[in-house]
Parts: sequence; structure tokens; C-alpha cells
Amino acid sequence: MTLEEAIAQRWDTRTKPQGSLGRLETLAADYCRTKNHPLPRLEAIGLYLFAADHGITEEAISLYPSAVTGQMLDNFRAGGAAVNVLAGLHQIQLHIVDAGVGRGTHNFARQPAMESDRLDAALQAGRMQAREAASLYDAVGIGEMGIGNTTSAAAILAALAGRSGSEVAGPGTGLSPDQVAHKAAVIDRALALHSLQRTHPKEILRCVGGLEIAQMTGFLLEASELRLPVMLDGFITTAAALLAQAMHPPSRAVMLFAHRSAEPAHQRMLQMLDAQPLLELDLRLGEGTGAILGLSLLRAAVLLYRDMASFTSASVSEAGPIH
Amino acid sequence: MTLEEAIAQRWDTRTKPQGSLGRLETLAADYCRTKNHPLPRLEAIGLYLFAADHGITEEAISLYPSAVTGQMLDNFRAGGAAVNVLAGLHQIQLHIVDAGVGRGTHNFARQPAMESDRLDAALQAGRMQAREAASLYDAVGIGEMGIGNTTSAAAILAALAGRSGSEVAGPGTGLSPDQVAHKAAVIDRALALHSLQRTHPKEILRCVGGLEIAQMTGFLLEASELRLPVMLDGFITTAAALLAQAMHPPSRAVMLFAHRSAEPAHQRMLQMLDAQPLLELDLRLGEGTGAILGLSLLRAAVLLYRDMASFTSASVSEAGPIH
Repeated sequence: MTLEEAIAQRWDTRTKPQGSLGRLETLAADYCRTKNHPLPRLEAIGLYLFAADHGITEEAISLYPSAVTGQMLDNFRAGGAAVNVLAGLHQIQLHIVDAGVGRGTHNFARQPAMESDRLDAALQAGRMQAREAASLYDAVGIGEMGIGNTTSAAAILAALAGRSGSEVAGPGTGLSPDQVAHKAAVIDRALALHSLQRTHPKEILRCVGGLEIAQMTGFLLEASELRLPVMLDGFITTAAALLAQAMHPPSRAVMLFAHRSAEPAHQRMLQMLDAQPLLELDLRLGEGTGAILGLSLLRAAVLLYRDMASFTSASVSEAGPIH
Repeated sequence: MTLEEAIAQRWDTRTKPQGSLGRLETLAADYCRTKNHPLPRLEAIGLYLFAADHGITEEAISLYPSAVTGQMLDNFRAGGAAVNVLAGLHQIQLHIVDAGVGRGTHNFARQPAMESDRLDAALQAGRMQAREAASLYDAVGIGEMGIGNTTSAAAILAALAGRSGSEVAGPGTGLSPDQVAHKAAVIDRALALHSLQRTHPKEILRCVGGLEIAQMTGFLLEASELRLPVMLDGFITTAAALLAQAMHPPSRAVMLFAHRSAEPAHQRMLQMLDAQPLLELDLRLGEGTGAILGLSLLRAAVLLYRDMASFTSASVSEAGPIH
């Protein structure tokens, strides 16, 4: 029996009409495929939250001062942020990764965001985090914090998809339409400065990326090697997913998509990844909050797949020709 | 300060961009309004699962024999069904209510589903369950089991909305298009037999309802008196919600909607209730499985609202004019 046959047989012998658990059935099947196992375990779950500062905040593209990134790092450590509340509720272990707070990127409207060796170090650091994650957890989520990083994520999307600033810039934490237009102009300026349209993904990441985005990209590339399922969060984590897919297309197989963000260009990213997210709750916070809700659905799906009784074991009659 | 002002102030001083938790913010606000309290507790949660047999199964409208209702009741009690797995995962207490298994309704294609005194007893029994629920829980969900009950729920929708059988009948547990057409014809026959188009909701319930649907209707009417928030599940529980709203429009205020079912006419029901469900996962199982996922989101929303740090307490800078 092939893996696909084993998955279909198990779902179809559980005590429910065939297919009636909808997306939860396909979600558990995706998990089995990633694990290459007909009845994989899903117990320990972790969330890796990558934080970094962004030089692009000099261009006045966020409502929040750059210092908020570090302040929120303290808030994560003290347990007061949204992600702490959700991780506690769903028994998901939170790992806070300082990917460059206080020593963030350069202002990419004026110069490349980072040097080549810094990019390589960030990619490698992300790979190390994934190796740790695979030793501790059956599945993980990733999230991020970095004032200014929707501008970086939007610039990455524009460069990868050959789009203009106005097609990718959104309100982020709550910009007005005029402020969004300014953000779009900053992105267009950077795309021209670095000659980024449709160039190599690693070069895009070096020129307009962020250190948390680079670490998440490395994390996904390594997770792909390790067959570790990774639940993506929103707009910024999905920019890392786009980069990982562009660098190594098979990495798409370990990615799960939690939700469609309220940030408008997230939809375009999801299409480029052929991804149907599980939730649509107008979230636009980041931190991994959406990823945790997605992981909670993943846990439910796998638990149903593993723990439901079969028609035989529960002595329930199966569907048959209508009599 | 009004309740609305208190809710807005609390959300807007939590450490996150304003509105960035999207539907979770409106969900917690709805909960506060139902409880008429600016910081309501949400600890104990229960799920009431109403099961009953349906005489309409004589008309060959389901893939499953009617005996499956009782067999599934045993499965619920033994802990092997989907709802057991999800209730255990999310620490929601399950109450199984035998609303008429083994002594179900009459075949409503030939005679009224129940006598007036039986309807009154079922409505009253549902009210008693809600009174118990309000003494035990801060919020509850409702779910159902009853082979044949999508036909009953579709007939209720047709009668309330002035629609034909073909506009309300769907595949239920998995009917083929021909079988759906037969189900639609059975519904049309029943609507004509009982002269049900746009008559009083209680008469509709008596003629084409089910005993579990009647108990859920009573449950919602009593929950409305007690300001007990009730998370609805899918197509059949929403038929009960339509009846409760038609009998007593203010009852709409305690209803929360977990998901959009894969049963096509569920969307029409949700429109009649002006409801935007939280999830869309192509579920069509019932049992309260969708309601539990919705309750998990409600718990997350209220916990975020209650437990997140404020900008002041966490020493995080607020949004300001861009500098």
C-alpha cells in the first residue's frame, strides 16, 4: 500500500462521512506526506520568533519608532505580548531569536541592507535554529518582529515578481493612503538603486531584506532538508517563504500557510506559492500569532486522524446504497 | 465611560497596532456585549450535542441507515467520535443529549413530524439544558447528530425563506446529484402537504422539524434570556438559529457563528442571520466539531483581550506622527 493509499484508507474508515472534515483531512494528509509516514506523531510544537531592526525606518515608513522592536523583544521575554498569550493557551514553546536588534540593517533606500558575509551568517544562523527545532519538535511555526519590515517584505515581493512599489506597498501597522504612497515611492527608489527587478533571490535579500527575513529563509531551507513542517505566519514570513522557494523550489513542500493577512499584497505572495491558507481573520500583527492559530488547527487535524474510532471498532454502520 | 468605550480603550492600549488582531478583536467585543461587562471571564466552556432520529429517512434521503444515529450516540459516549477528540484537545466539556433516539419524528413527507405537545416538550427540554449550561459555563457551543436531519433543516430554510426544495437541498453526508434532486422533491412534497410557505416558525418546526432541532431552538431562546453566548456549528444548528430568530429576534444577540459549512444552502441561512462565520474549512460533519473550533478562537480572543500587557505596563512606545 502506498502512502497515499494508507492516508485515504485511514481517513475513510474513521466514523464520519467521507471527506466531511474538509480542510482538516487535507491538512493531516499534507503532514503525513512531509513526514513520509502514514501515522506520524504530532506532540511537541515550537514557535520561532525572529526579531531585527531595519535601517529603512529612517525613511519614515512606519507609525512606530524603531525602538519599539527592542521594547517588544523585552515584552516577549516578559510574557506580555499577543504571541505569549496564544503560545501559552495552545502549549506551544516560544523561542525568541534576536536576529539583529540594535545592530539592524542599513537603510536600503541608500545602500544595500547588508553585506554579503552578514547575509551568509544570517542564513546560516537560521539553518542552525531549524536544526535545533527539528531535534525538539514535531512541527514548528515561524513569526517575526521588526519595525519597518513590511517595507522590506514588500520590496522583496516587488523584486521577485517584477512589480512596482504601488502594487506591493500596504498599510502595515496602519499607514494612511498618503503614507502608503510614500512607502511605495521608497520601494521604487530602492528597486532602481539596486537594479533588482527579477534578479537572483539571494541578491534581493542582501539588498532590500532584513536580518530576521534572512534567518527565516535559512530556517526554511534547512527545514526542507530535515522534513520539518513549518507553519508560516503573515506577510513578512511569507516573503521569506518566497525567497526560500526561489532559492530551492522543493522547500515549498514543508511549508504550511496559517492565514491570509489583512496586508493586501499577501494574497499575491500566496498565489506565487500556490498556497491556500487555513484562516482569514484580518490579522496583521505578525509575531507568529497567526501561525499559532494555524498550528492549533494542525494539531486538531492530526489528532482526529490518529485518535478517532473506525467504523469497525465503534460498531457503526458505513454508508451504502440507499435502501 | 460606556461599555463600547471601555472595550475600545482596552483593545487600543494593548501592545499591538490598533485593530491588528482583526476578527479576534470584534469577537472579544461581541462577547463583552453579550455579557454586558467590560472584562468578562471566559473559563469553563461546554458543548451540548443533541441527537434524534428522523422519520423522513423512510424517503431514502441519506446514504446512512437511520440506525447510525444510535450507533453514533454510543460512539460519543465511548469517546471515539470526532467531537470527542476535539473536545478533549480544547478542554471543552461534552454533554450528550438524547432528544429522541429510538423514538424520533414521524415521516414529514406524509404527516407532521411531531404533535404539538411533543414540540412543546422538546422546546422546554432545550430551555432546561440552557439553564443548566448557564449555571456551569461561561460560554457554550451546540452540535447535533441525526441521520436525515439535513433534509429537515433544508425544509425549515425553504419554509422560512419561501424557497423551493432545489434551492435548499444539498449533498448532506455525500449524496449524488440525482439523490439531491430526489431530496429536493421530497422537500417540495412536504412543503405542499403542510402548506408551509412563510407560515409561523413554530408551525414549521412542528411539521418538518426534528426533535434535536426543536431542543436547540429552545436552548437558544433560553440562552438569550440568560445572556449565555452560544457558538453555532453548521447547517442544522443554523436552522435552529433561524427558528429562534424568527420566534424571538433579540435571541440573535447571543449567537456566534463558527464556520461556513460545505453544505451549499448554509450560506443562505447565514445571510438571513447577517452572520459572518469565523472559519471556512469545508466541514460538513456536524456533531459540534465546527463549534469547538470556533470556541477555541473565542477563548483565544478573550484571553488576548484580558491578558495582554498594555503599552504603559510593558514600557512600549505607542504609534505617533511619523518623525
